[in-house]
Amino acid sequence: MRIGYLMRIGAPGSEKRVARIDDQTYVDLSDIVDDFDEEFFGSGGIDRVRPVVDERAAAVRVSRFDGERIGAPIARPHQILCIGLNYRDHAAETGQAVPDEPILFTKAPNTLVGPNDDVRIPRGSTKPDWEVELGIVIGRRTSYLDTVEEAADAIAGYLVVNDVSERAFQMERGGQWVKGKSAETFNPAGPWLVTPDEIDDVLALDMWLDVNGLRRQDGNTKTMIFDPWFIVHHLSQFLVLEPGDLINTGTPPGVGMGFTPPVWLRPGDVMELGIAGLGSQRQNVLGPR
Amino acid sequence: MRIGYLMRIGAPGSEKRVARIDDQTYVDLSDIVDDFDEEFFGSGGIDRVRPVVDERAAAVRVSRFDGERIGAPIARPHQILCIGLNYRDHAAETGQAVPDEPILFTKAPNTLVGPNDDVRIPRGSTKPDWEVELGIVIGRRTSYLDTVEEAADAIAGYLVVNDVSERAFQMERGGQWVKGKSAETFNPAGPWLVTPDEIDDVLALDMWLDVNGLRRQDGNTKTMIFDPWFIVHHLSQFLVLEPGDLINTGTPPGVGMGFTPPVWLRPGDVMELGIAGLGSQRQNVLGPR
Repeated sequence: MRIGYLMRIGAPGSEKRVARIDDQTYVDLSDIVDDFDEEFFGSGGIDRVRPVVDERAAAVRVSRFDGERIGAPIARPHQILCIGLNYRDHAAETGQAVPDEPILFTKAPNTLVGPNDDVRIPRGSTKPDWEVELGIVIGRRTSYLDTVEEAADAIAGYLVVNDVSERAFQMERGGQWVKGKSAETFNPAGPWLVTPDEIDDVLALDMWLDVNGLRRQDGNTKTMIFDPWFIVHHLSQFLVLEPGDLINTGTPPGVGMGFTPPVWLRPGDVMELGIAGLGSQRQNVLGPR
Repeated sequence: MRIGYLMRIGAPGSEKRVARIDDQTYVDLSDIVDDFDEEFFGSGGIDRVRPVVDERAAAVRVSRFDGERIGAPIARPHQILCIGLNYRDHAAETGQAVPDEPILFTKAPNTLVGPNDDVRIPRGSTKPDWEVELGIVIGRRTSYLDTVEEAADAIAGYLVVNDVSERAFQMERGGQWVKGKSAETFNPAGPWLVTPDEIDDVLALDMWLDVNGLRRQDGNTKTMIFDPWFIVHHLSQFLVLEPGDLINTGTPPGVGMGFTPPVWLRPGDVMELGIAGLGSQRQNVLGPR
């Protein structure tokens, strides 16, 4: 048995750390894991808990899911890095050129929430938008990788993220995208962290996003411009990646600003999104508090 | 006695937490403070240690500085936010317009180092540059401030930062500034965190930066476009500021890219910089590792 699916379940701030066995059952690791955080990933935590999960599953020391809230599968990371315009068709729909190299921007780390938590439109927002994305979680301190191939060892796993965006804040309020990416609740993540060995081909994953039951994004990771290993290698030339860092790798076509006229989120909307094998999310959209 | 000058001294990762009394002596707070971090600032730590410092100073429970390394006066923050082009003359020297509202960008939090630690030029760098800046440390969780006046209560203190920058990475590698701001060692901070009550007028502080003994930046916070309270109020409309977050508020004229021809840092250079009342820094510039 592998540690395919790490999860955090329970109330915000006091989630249990568990390994999902199947839709019904999980192994609780809370007694041996403080959190799925920088210390955990940086100290070989995934390898350390692997035999424990095997042993507990074999001994039927498993629990049944009971409708608990699902948190993000990782603790608040040191940084959330994001790649912009990383799908050819998405670059086209936004009217921007395909980039020569990865466009890097960031989100505030405290935007991280669970996959089914509410998303709140910020005050003053006029153009709130959605973005289903493949997220990468970094597994070790990583700097100046010599080759793209080495990046595989730096990746702890993958997950679904919704890179929620406020386009007016992003584009019309001072020139750097972070302003439109960092409102609270703007980065639902999960439900699971899937280790790379559980994924047959990370560049052949269907991904989708519906708003109020209407399919808005319908893509596949095969149309990414820069693949996960290229991205990790590239970023490692500019900064030091810490264990547990999250990288949002860009969104396929179908974001709200790509429609004519544009379609923006409104209070009461429901977003549902997912990536094949990585699970799905469902968020209610709330108005400003 | 006030808690004017919080410091962290000792080896990286194991700094003592102290309150500076004067150039020779300090009160050690390590037994009651785990770190000057999010938990400390967010739980009223400054008010909590104030009477302890008074009591220990009165009882002459003080220690003498003995040439220890000085760390950044705060732990690695949740986020480092930066304001761009916030001095009229600096905007002019870079050939860019004075912004209508604060330009926000970010640095990787793990760029934070001590005020006298080495600054390392990253691999592939051709345009490494300096920026003396006033830094703000956030004192409480802050979101949607109603008025600019309320921002005063959200500020724990001020410190000197060097917002080291790689202009080619910043401007020529994908369109968002974070790429040129996030290399390791790129954010020396300190030596002290000074609480606002210790500063007569934060908008009348001389600031300077020398390279190899030659004065390169010579400014004053009075020429800031957006003052600290305006900035904190403004940012709180876009994201949630966490206790211990660091905001670099922009640099006065005299950065390397402002000269004709431009002047870039080289291995072996020495940067010295400071702000009146907030102390000074000295960094040796090293080549890529």
